[in-house]
Amino acid sequence: MFKAELSNPNILKTSFDAISSIVDEVQIQTDSEGIRLDALDRSHITFVHLELKSSLFDEFVCDEPEKINIDTDEFVKVLKRSKSNDKVTMSLDEGNFIITFEGEAKRTFKIRLIDIDQEPPSPPELDHPTQFEIPFTLLKDSIADIDIFSDKISLMVDGEYFRAGSEGEFGDANIEYLHGEKIDGEAKSVFSLEKIREMLKADKFSDIATISLGDDMPLDLKLKMVSDDGKLSFLLAPRIEVEE
Amino acid sequence: MFKAELSNPNILKTSFDAISSIVDEVQIQTDSEGIRLDALDRSHITFVHLELKSSLFDEFVCDEPEKINIDTDEFVKVLKRSKSNDKVTMSLDEGNFIITFEGEAKRTFKIRLIDIDQEPPSPPELDHPTQFEIPFTLLKDSIADIDIFSDKISLMVDGEYFRAGSEGEFGDANIEYLHGEKIDGEAKSVFSLEKIREMLKADKFSDIATISLGDDMPLDLKLKMVSDDGKLSFLLAPRIEVEE
Amino acid sequence: MFKAELSNPNILKTSFDAISSIVDEVQIQTDSEGIRLDALDRSHITFVHLELKSSLFDEFVCDEPEKINIDTDEFVKVLKRSKSNDKVTMSLDEGNFIITFEGEAKRTFKIRLIDIDQEPPSPPELDHPTQFEIPFTLLKDSIADIDIFSDKISLMVDGEYFRAGSEGEFGDANIEYLHGEKIDGEAKSVFSLEKIREMLKADKFSDIATISLGDDMPLDLKLKMVSDDGKLSFLLAPRIEVEE
Repeated sequence: MFKAELSNPNILKTSFDAISSIVDEVQIQTDSEGIRLDALDRSHITFVHLELKSSLFDEFVCDEPEKINIDTDEFVKVLKRSKSNDKVTMSLDEGNFIITFEGEAKRTFKIRLIDIDQEPPSPPELDHPTQFEIPFTLLKDSIADIDIFSDKISLMVDGEYFRAGSEGEFGDANIEYLHGEKIDGEAKSVFSLEKIREMLKADKFSDIATISLGDDMPLDLKLKMVSDDGKLSFLLAPRIEVEE
Repeated sequence: MFKAELSNPNILKTSFDAISSIVDEVQIQTDSEGIRLDALDRSHITFVHLELKSSLFDEFVCDEPEKINIDTDEFVKVLKRSKSNDKVTMSLDEGNFIITFEGEAKRTFKIRLIDIDQEPPSPPELDHPTQFEIPFTLLKDSIADIDIFSDKISLMVDGEYFRAGSEGEFGDANIEYLHGEKIDGEAKSVFSLEKIREMLKADKFSDIATISLGDDMPLDLKLKMVSDDGKLSFLLAPRIEVEE
Repeated sequence: MFKAELSNPNILKTSFDAISSIVDEVQIQTDSEGIRLDALDRSHITFVHLELKSSLFDEFVCDEPEKINIDTDEFVKVLKRSKSNDKVTMSLDEGNFIITFEGEAKRTFKIRLIDIDQEPPSPPELDHPTQFEIPFTLLKDSIADIDIFSDKISLMVDGEYFRAGSEGEFGDANIEYLHGEKIDGEAKSVFSLEKIREMLKADKFSDIATISLGDDMPLDLKLKMVSDDGKLSFLLAPRIEVEE
């Protein structure tokens, strides 16, 4: 038996808004410790990991591990119907993932479970030379700034600044942010703007993003709840830049 | 001579927003008692009735009964240009329906009268076994919930609950609302979601909807102003559900 | 050397929002007195003039006159990325117009300078018989009112009223505003609604518009900052109305 009750649907909404733009189908794994999800997009560019601990939930029951295979778009459509003050309950019956919102009325949605053959991927282990925090909104703004002139973005960090930049045919854009952290050396990689934009839909998960960067290494973007009850993280492969 | 003055355009705006999505042309009948409109959509699925009593108006003059035949879309375009604190006046000249908004400036719109041959339809008399009230927003939300998985909706009522539900290929949606009224027995009918959505554009007419239901009978949805000076009601034919 | 610093990007944003819908490319002229721009749309229907005095800026340095030739759309894209509380700096390097926004982060945009062969046009000298002020929002509303039934608009003024009107196939619209100014005689011209709509994008430049009208003369629309540090004005050729 699986049953999980949350006092507020926003964490699920914001996480799956990002996840659904990365992967079409997903396997949610649940056991006594909480909920976990690992997925890799079809082109093997973005890896996403979500973890919601049982302590996050108002009620959490999971007798034995379950695998909940669903279409992410269908789940997002349901989550979009929630209101901020709805109590949310997730459970399972034969063949359906059941989501209930309770407010003025009780609204129950059943999403058909699907077949997923593969096991969920394991996150690659990476050892990034730099790590720093920046406000989530600043990251989101930078993407929109860069978007004016280019569809790729270079992310750089050194002892003082985090920099996002790009050069386009009609102009350049550069963002410079004093990160205030202790970082030795510097690191730089170039990424697809569109792929970063997908990850940044999770903007209500946390106000602060932790970024790990290396030279031509994947971007590691971590979002952590203040309460430490949940985290959402993304790994994004760098673009290979050829001399033109 | 016909002249009707309202201190606020919102009742007209919300009524005709719904009416214009049901019928293209309409005959507004006016006499000393007020304004009345009866219309049936082309496919004979939705019947709409609007009544605004002379007491609702700040000034109401109607020497002899008039028939105002207009294109509903043109009227809605004009009403959309009103502001909430505009004083509205409606009148007639030879060939035109005249609408005036008075605020900072005086804005006058004339809509050409059109020819309508038929007499307006009379509402069918129906005796529904159940009747109950529900918040208008809840009804509107339910429609949007159901919309995720299906294009039809079943409405049910029993002694305790009002239920809206549907089954789709990818999932189910069900809404359950404790109505708190005295109802014997139960009733259920299935309707087109799109047709209900048209009626629900009139959401600023009243906060409360009165619903009458029967087994495979038309849905009767009534909106009543608190002051009893006006009402807007809809009858919607049920869908015939065949066994598949 | 040219450098101009503003504590707020809104004046630039609203001006160039209008300018970019009139002309694709523009030459900004800058000297010790400030910034100036004159442009004429391709079809020679709208003339636009912008003037921002050096006193408007927090810092303004211009050793020798410069001509800044840019694509207006690119500039607008950059300005749209500004936030209301960003400090804006404009400067030049070899081949680029540089715009910097400083807030939480420092964001720098470089727009490539382009070649413009022609000299900017000089504004025609016109002597309109009437001049009056009206609230900018009222002008904007009138355009939207007229838009329901027609794509041209007649603007009229007499001793008491400013009137905007049009006749269409399905209806008429007329706006009447008591201007409260001393005007002898009357004047009337007809204009393209679309062309006026372009000018009215500059709605954050000033709350008040000064209009000059004559019989079949261009519309002269002036927007002036309260501080007298800047003005934005438009001349719009009248439509030639033929008897049908």
